Amino acid sequence: MNFKSDNVTGAAPEILAALTRANTGTLPSYGEDEITKRVGEKLKDIFETDLAAFPVATGSAANSLALAELTPPWGAVYCHPLSHIHTDECGAPEFFTHGAKLAPIDGPAGKFSAGTLAATLKGAGTGVVHHVQPAAVSVSQVTEAGTIYSLDELKAIAAVAHGAGLAVHMDGARFANALVALGCRPADMTWRAGIDVLSFGATKNGALAAEAVIFFDKKRAANFAFRRKRGGHLFSKMRFLSAQLDAYLDGDLWLKNARHANAMAAILADGLARLPGVGMTYPAQANEVFPSLPEPMIRGLEAAGFGFYRWSGQTVRLVTAYNTAEADARAFVAKAAELARAAAAD
Amino acid sequence: MNFKSDNVTGAAPEILAALTRANTGTLPSYGEDEITKRVGEKLKDIFETDLAAFPVATGSAANSLALAELTPPWGAVYCHPLSHIHTDECGAPEFFTHGAKLAPIDGPAGKFSAGTLAATLKGAGTGVVHHVQPAAVSVSQVTEAGTIYSLDELKAIAAVAHGAGLAVHMDGARFANALVALGCRPADMTWRAGIDVLSFGATKNGALAAEAVIFFDKKRAANFAFRRKRGGHLFSKMRFLSAQLDAYLDGDLWLKNARHANAMAAILADGLARLPGVGMTYPAQANEVFPSLPEPMIRGLEAAGFGFYRWSGQTVRLVTAYNTAEADARAFVAKAAELARAAAAD
Amino acid sequence: MNFKSDNVTGAAPEILAALTRANTGTLPSYGEDEITKRVGEKLKDIFETDLAAFPVATGSAANSLALAELTPPWGAVYCHPLSHIHTDECGAPEFFTHGAKLAPIDGPAGKFSAGTLAATLKGAGTGVVHHVQPAAVSVSQVTEAGTIYSLDELKAIAAVAHGAGLAVHMDGARFANALVALGCRPADMTWRAGIDVLSFGATKNGALAAEAVIFFDKKRAANFAFRRKRGGHLFSKMRFLSAQLDAYLDGDLWLKNARHANAMAAILADGLARLPGVGMTYPAQANEVFPSLPEPMIRGLEAAGFGFYRWSGQTVRLVTAYNTAEADARAFVAKAAELARAAAAD
Amino acid sequence: MNFKSDNVTGAAPEILAALTRANTGTLPSYGEDEITKRVGEKLKDIFETDLAAFPVATGSAANSLALAELTPPWGAVYCHPLSHIHTDECGAPEFFTHGAKLAPIDGPAGKFSAGTLAATLKGAGTGVVHHVQPAAVSVSQVTEAGTIYSLDELKAIAAVAHGAGLAVHMDGARFANALVALGCRPADMTWRAGIDVLSFGATKNGALAAEAVIFFDKKRAANFAFRRKRGGHLFSKMRFLSAQLDAYLDGDLWLKNARHANAMAAILADGLARLPGVGMTYPAQANEVFPSLPEPMIRGLEAAGFGFYRWSGQTVRLVTAYNTAEADARAFVAKAAELARAAAAD
Repeated sequence: MNFKSDNVTGAAPEILAALTRANTGTLPSYGEDEITKRVGEKLKDIFETDLAAFPVATGSAANSLALAELTPPWGAVYCHPLSHIHTDECGAPEFFTHGAKLAPIDGPAGKFSAGTLAATLKGAGTGVVHHVQPAAVSVSQVTEAGTIYSLDELKAIAAVAHGAGLAVHMDGARFANALVALGCRPADMTWRAGIDVLSFGATKNGALAAEAVIFFDKKRAANFAFRRKRGGHLFSKMRFLSAQLDAYLDGDLWLKNARHANAMAAILADGLARLPGVGMTYPAQANEVFPSLPEPMIRGLEAAGFGFYRWSGQTVRLVTAYNTAEADARAFVAKAAELARAAAAD
Repeated sequence: MNFKSDNVTGAAPEILAALTRANTGTLPSYGEDEITKRVGEKLKDIFETDLAAFPVATGSAANSLALAELTPPWGAVYCHPLSHIHTDECGAPEFFTHGAKLAPIDGPAGKFSAGTLAATLKGAGTGVVHHVQPAAVSVSQVTEAGTIYSLDELKAIAAVAHGAGLAVHMDGARFANALVALGCRPADMTWRAGIDVLSFGATKNGALAAEAVIFFDKKRAANFAFRRKRGGHLFSKMRFLSAQLDAYLDGDLWLKNARHANAMAAILADGLARLPGVGMTYPAQANEVFPSLPEPMIRGLEAAGFGFYRWSGQTVRLVTAYNTAEADARAFVAKAAELARAAAAD
Repeated sequence: MNFKSDNVTGAAPEILAALTRANTGTLPSYGEDEITKRVGEKLKDIFETDLAAFPVATGSAANSLALAELTPPWGAVYCHPLSHIHTDECGAPEFFTHGAKLAPIDGPAGKFSAGTLAATLKGAGTGVVHHVQPAAVSVSQVTEAGTIYSLDELKAIAAVAHGAGLAVHMDGARFANALVALGCRPADMTWRAGIDVLSFGATKNGALAAEAVIFFDKKRAANFAFRRKRGGHLFSKMRFLSAQLDAYLDGDLWLKNARHANAMAAILADGLARLPGVGMTYPAQANEVFPSLPEPMIRGLEAAGFGFYRWSGQTVRLVTAYNTAEADARAFVAKAAELARAAAAD
Repeated sequence: MNFKSDNVTGAAPEILAALTRANTGTLPSYGEDEITKRVGEKLKDIFETDLAAFPVATGSAANSLALAELTPPWGAVYCHPLSHIHTDECGAPEFFTHGAKLAPIDGPAGKFSAGTLAATLKGAGTGVVHHVQPAAVSVSQVTEAGTIYSLDELKAIAAVAHGAGLAVHMDGARFANALVALGCRPADMTWRAGIDVLSFGATKNGALAAEAVIFFDKKRAANFAFRRKRGGHLFSKMRFLSAQLDAYLDGDLWLKNARHANAMAAILADGLARLPGVGMTYPAQANEVFPSLPEPMIRGLEAAGFGFYRWSGQTVRLVTAYNTAEADARAFVAKAAELARAAAAD
């Protein structure tokens, strides 16, 4: 009954099993093995294009290494003020980019618009030596507010970015959750919309620790291998990183897991939204729910043993995962309803 | 029959099994879980002292993050020219230390001496603003030449270093192999000898991807948690990193594995040393053997399907692992003997 | 008739003359000379305290080197969104701090308040490994909006900062202009108000290229000499940098120069404020004036050969210097008045 | 009678006078002024080619900013172990390059050979992700040993470097001294020999603090302006930096100054070489002399008030400058001769 994050869960059994399968004999180290190659091929199929994919173990590594390929140290990376890269990675992007500036662009519900980006770029001082130089845009899909950019929104942002010579990165820590919510093809939500580089997350959706940085324009990846090694993120026994991704992509496990997490979030959101005194701070579009709850309800839920984070004021954050039990989600709603009734009776 | 490295192997079954055991229910993320705490306690027992231990996934991360705590950006880190940090990590230490200088100190068989270190420090310009400032010493135990520092050698180096105000780091990627070779206690080979920080390797000795950075003086670790996070090396599902270390340390698995690897190397070294035309470039003291072989023998072994690296000139490197089959080691020696006989018959 | 900046001017004749005086015989290099020592002593007298002072040649160097002593790479430096360090130094602070984050705190007229700082720090995640850590506050005195913090405002900000363990930096590129405007003692506007480190500017007020970084707590300066050298900012013929500061501080030249510049700005501000259609975007408190002018007046002034920058919308920036001719200031006002009359006559 | 360095002197009167001449009226700041443009044109004439020139104030800034344009953070810069960039800049190149590795290549008398460079590059692991990547070569002309590369030696080094895809930098802190010693054209000693980027020194040869970074291939300079600004090395009142270079290049002042310094060094070298017990550790080819002197002679010269540095063992370093008095040079030789006679008489 822990809704604190999708990283408090363990790993999907299919992925654990793949580790054991990968544990056979000697294999070339540092990514020259067959499993790593197979993951690359699977990703090409899934994204319907040639690409360069690099497994790493954490989302912060994926994001920071990706951004380091897109911006010089004197560059600006535009992102939402709530974005994980800006607020939750202890400055990892600044570390890997050697000091680039994350320039926040605000907007409602965790998203910024192409229009705001365009207005910001107009005053950014491109080419003027006194100012950091616009270099990249990073969008989070799912956002930190649990919302999702529509394909049209992504396309509009990418068009503005590309028009000004900026590269576009997507932080896809919850890529699968966004994808199944939009019901589109992976290519539609990425390179066809103008995404140049994707942090393709698997950890939150059932892996132990596995992400892939995917470059849809392979030329942009020229130095990535050096950066990854230099960052201490090149695994010697790469097979165990790749095997997680291999199983994750196998038989649509990744999509199945994400659909389940999203469905559990919908149970929470639908159930809570009906209760008196409960609002939705952000629309629940994937596997995160941000209800605004009366203080006694928050305390009652905590007392009942439910785990979750307070987000801001009366808003709490509930996150569901690939293995959240439907009974747990329903129990949360039931307890909240009970507390609402008790409050009404006072 | 692949002797290329101890990272071409998979993982010990005991460690794989621990991952499955760790996959139960929700657990706090980012290292606040019980498994991580248990690993810390086990390490305190094993090293017979209080300490601060931080799991990371790669040896380059362990070394670089450790060194970054020991040197300012304008510092010098003294190490052997063959050391992994100097030659095999694509500048990771320079990246994490923000540009400190690795200052090589030469010496035979992969080891430098306290005397050479002292002489170097005398001319280093301590306190003079034009020069990088001596900050740390890094010793590799096992060295890149497969040799081992004696406890007296370590103590002498640490005494010189501490006398000049430098911290001492040990790259223990093959720590267990050195330990069982010396037959001493972990404390003797580390803090009792003057080691301040240890990269405690497990990956090469049976883990999938797990190391621990161990600070014997916890005050030195003040900023480590921020550096690890900022480097993208803090795992959200830390349980899976810690579970590897937990199993590694359980029931002396780590020592058993190392003893086996060393024994296999001894079979190779003893068998090869007896053959005509074969010399030992470095003494084989742990799980690496560096024989100098006649060119036709090298080619013959390669043709027979044995995997190994050419080190330099006629010297090749053979590495054994926790799971090297005795039959494979003996087959290698037998083939070499056969090739030696054939050559003699010519 | 160029009001673009106080750096379009040359140097005060007294300072140029000092360079020739300093050009006698051989002197120890790299700051071991008598002139540099004398500047240190003068600054101690002027600031009525012991201090450590380091000459450098540019304001960006002064600010960035100072901040690098105050924040770790994973630190946050709070500053106004308009501040020079945030917007006009191409990321120099990020470079010298190895990637610290400049965290803007907004407020009217180029100033932020102690209250806003306190509220920001409350939510900053101190001690939480996922977030950059609050490390320093930087105030600009004069601000980029030409305004001045009162002594009480400075004290309140420093109290909040120190209460949370943060150091306080003052960007004093126009320190003298603020000082004579407040009419207080240098100590009052700095260490007595809680300023820990000061970028003491001279270039904009009559030097060729000379600033001093002043630490009121010498312990904070422990590594500054190494940082300055490593940044390429330690002059071999330091006498020529110090001689500028020496002359600048001699016989109150610095205060005389600043008083003149401020007086010229007052002529502009007073004259313009009286004209119809003219507003003051920020109060003119030192040597910068930010009037909002009707578009035809802007164009008319440009056509008449007056140099100035458009700030934003109808607001322009006029900067006066130590040697601005009173006739030029009056000519500007007269032309503006003529244009205002012409507009009224239309 | 101070032969410690060519930076213990002041500035040439012609250069000081130019500062006063430059102090007329307002001029665009940050290098958009006419004086800066004129320096660029003069350099094109002198080097007989199109080029991009950037004034900076110190040699460390010039070298480090230049190298930062030539190597990625994971690059290796090959240089002599005695080179200034490797030993005397407190790691400035590592700072500006974000951690590139300076890889020393040894050779006699401060010079390394094309052959040694080629052998080193062969084993450097180009393209292998574990190793830093060969990126640039830096030669010092004059070297730190006071010697000079011949044009053929430079060409051979550049040919090896370019053949392997490396850029070639020349640290020309004493460029003029080398040029007049070789008696060749500036173009011959630079781009015609294969030099891509030059740190063109003026400070040691009569300027107050002025160097220029010169790119013979302008495309390589694409980011230099951002790096210079970000490093705090873009002067707002650039006229005063450029005016020094302008006067330095005027009427061959730079060559005249260098010829004088070299002639004074020749007086020292020729006079000392004739004395019994005196050897020359390196051949004196420019304005530095490295004689090996008997200990009593060293002490006697020190007692007589002559200033110089002990280099190593019995070798001392004597440096002459553009304004060294011939009488001082002759007095040094005479005193040494007197001490030699006294020693012989004992």
